[in-house]
Amino acid sequence: MAVLVSVKGDKAEDWMPHFESALPGETHIWDSHDGDVSLLPDVDYAMVWGPQASLFKRIANVKAIFSLGAGVDHILNAGTVPAHLPVVRYVGDDLTARMGEYVAMQCLMHLRQHSLMDAQQKAGIWQQQPQPAANEVRVGIMGLGVMGAHSAGVLKAIGFQVAGWSRSAKHIDGVKIFAGMENLDAFLAGTDILVCLLPHTPDTFHLINTIFLKKLARNGVLGGPILINAGRGKCQIDAEILEALTDGTLKAASLDVFETEPLPAPSPFWSLPNCFITPHAAAWSDRSAVVAYAANQIKSHRAGLPLLNVVDRQRGY
Amino acid sequence: MAVLVSVKGDKAEDWMPHFESALPGETHIWDSHDGDVSLLPDVDYAMVWGPQASLFKRIANVKAIFSLGAGVDHILNAGTVPAHLPVVRYVGDDLTARMGEYVAMQCLMHLRQHSLMDAQQKAGIWQQQPQPAANEVRVGIMGLGVMGAHSAGVLKAIGFQVAGWSRSAKHIDGVKIFAGMENLDAFLAGTDILVCLLPHTPDTFHLINTIFLKKLARNGVLGGPILINAGRGKCQIDAEILEALTDGTLKAASLDVFETEPLPAPSPFWSLPNCFITPHAAAWSDRSAVVAYAANQIKSHRAGLPLLNVVDRQRGY
Repeated sequence: MAVLVSVKGDKAEDWMPHFESALPGETHIWDSHDGDVSLLPDVDYAMVWGPQASLFKRIANVKAIFSLGAGVDHILNAGTVPAHLPVVRYVGDDLTARMGEYVAMQCLMHLRQHSLMDAQQKAGIWQQQPQPAANEVRVGIMGLGVMGAHSAGVLKAIGFQVAGWSRSAKHIDGVKIFAGMENLDAFLAGTDILVCLLPHTPDTFHLINTIFLKKLARNGVLGGPILINAGRGKCQIDAEILEALTDGTLKAASLDVFETEPLPAPSPFWSLPNCFITPHAAAWSDRSAVVAYAANQIKSHRAGLPLLNVVDRQRGY
Repeated sequence: MAVLVSVKGDKAEDWMPHFESALPGETHIWDSHDGDVSLLPDVDYAMVWGPQASLFKRIANVKAIFSLGAGVDHILNAGTVPAHLPVVRYVGDDLTARMGEYVAMQCLMHLRQHSLMDAQQKAGIWQQQPQPAANEVRVGIMGLGVMGAHSAGVLKAIGFQVAGWSRSAKHIDGVKIFAGMENLDAFLAGTDILVCLLPHTPDTFHLINTIFLKKLARNGVLGGPILINAGRGKCQIDAEILEALTDGTLKAASLDVFETEPLPAPSPFWSLPNCFITPHAAAWSDRSAVVAYAANQIKSHRAGLPLLNVVDRQRGY
């Protein structure tokens, strides 16, 4: 038995120690995306990040494909993944906790006017400013999976008012839930800080656009709505967010994701004074944790146990 | 009956609407610090911020003095406050919550390498960085009153390891407590991020100095110890913190307080790249909440109920 690995972007040698530690002698890197899989006839699982379409033909007989990061859009959109082939999402405490860190920090930096404080520091100005409290601010989280639910709990602990929107109804203690597209407008109308943790699916593609942003609350204590996107860049239209940040539709934003990543060097986003940019690192996850997660599932599946967190191909996540 | 008010720094007219709302027709501003109190013979309480020593002689017959902000050092150090006169601390949910916001945000900004992310953004660089998780970082809180205990809870919710030090033993769920000066070194040796929320007392004066800072953990995942002081500037020696931030004793700091406030314009602190400065605003509190708190205590005390949060003059807080 063997596990095929395909890693885009990251250097395979950086991952290899983790594979070797989790599945000694078993993992084979499909490097340069043209390796000959037929030389590995007993490959029974694949672990991939950003696979090329041609990979799927070569691994049609594996028992499951594991994503080596959050999200599976990089797999589902790469080509035709055979319908019978289970695709497994990464769900990890580590990833979940890091997303909570990012969401809490960005909400707090907007609440506590960090840009203004930073500007005052650079100018040597000691000046207190009127400062709303977290409990006056309504944070709305789109996407209430494990990461969304955890982030909601952290924000509640800090003191924010928290609401959430998801495709289907959920229950999270102390969080007002809006479910389905028919309740999206009501959700947005009561949101001062929008936190997008949505996966990229046909339903969420380009969802965050000018019309959408104009539906956010404008009567809040922060002086205008704020967007935080740590989901997927394909859920937004970059050009329309840029316009919104320039014309006042948005007061500010925190963007960890973009339609095109890496964000190109000439992008005007870099120099926006009201936008905190991070390099798709909100839920930067420990490689060893991701690999251990997939390896543990492979071992238990080989032992006859069911796979966990298998993607619903209809929903797309 | 009447309530005398003395407010330093802030313009009295900014406070007046809150006094009028809480105690209509009762409050009299002792403006310019030389008003003739004898003209107000029925003054039974005082609400003060930064009083002059001469005030105490004039209000020796009041039933209590209320601090119009966090801390009472501005009262106890202003002159001889008659021993029989109760001094009441402000304890408010609002103040407590805001301190939790500040502490969480500063810990997160250091954890998530905000200075580096900001520098990358300014340079148009899209580059993920190795990123420790909160559960790898040990935050130590000095001062476990209401604000310290709340901050500990918020940090726990985010995922940090949290320990605490206080003068006397406390219990906070999930927080390792160190009590008394005899356990201070052990506390510091296990602390990556030190959060100081101590009051200014003879015991805490200049506590945070070179010798103290060198006792902090140097084996943590953040690459060096970090100091956050949102207590009182008099608890630290500014010059020695500056040196520690320059020579590597400290990796970074967040300072909301200084020995001299406002921080003078020529201070080298302003331009330190590894120090976030805020203008004594960590627990910026709503004036209306502070005034309502004092007014409610005055009303209940007049009705025969005991005062809450009276300062222990021996401890100094």
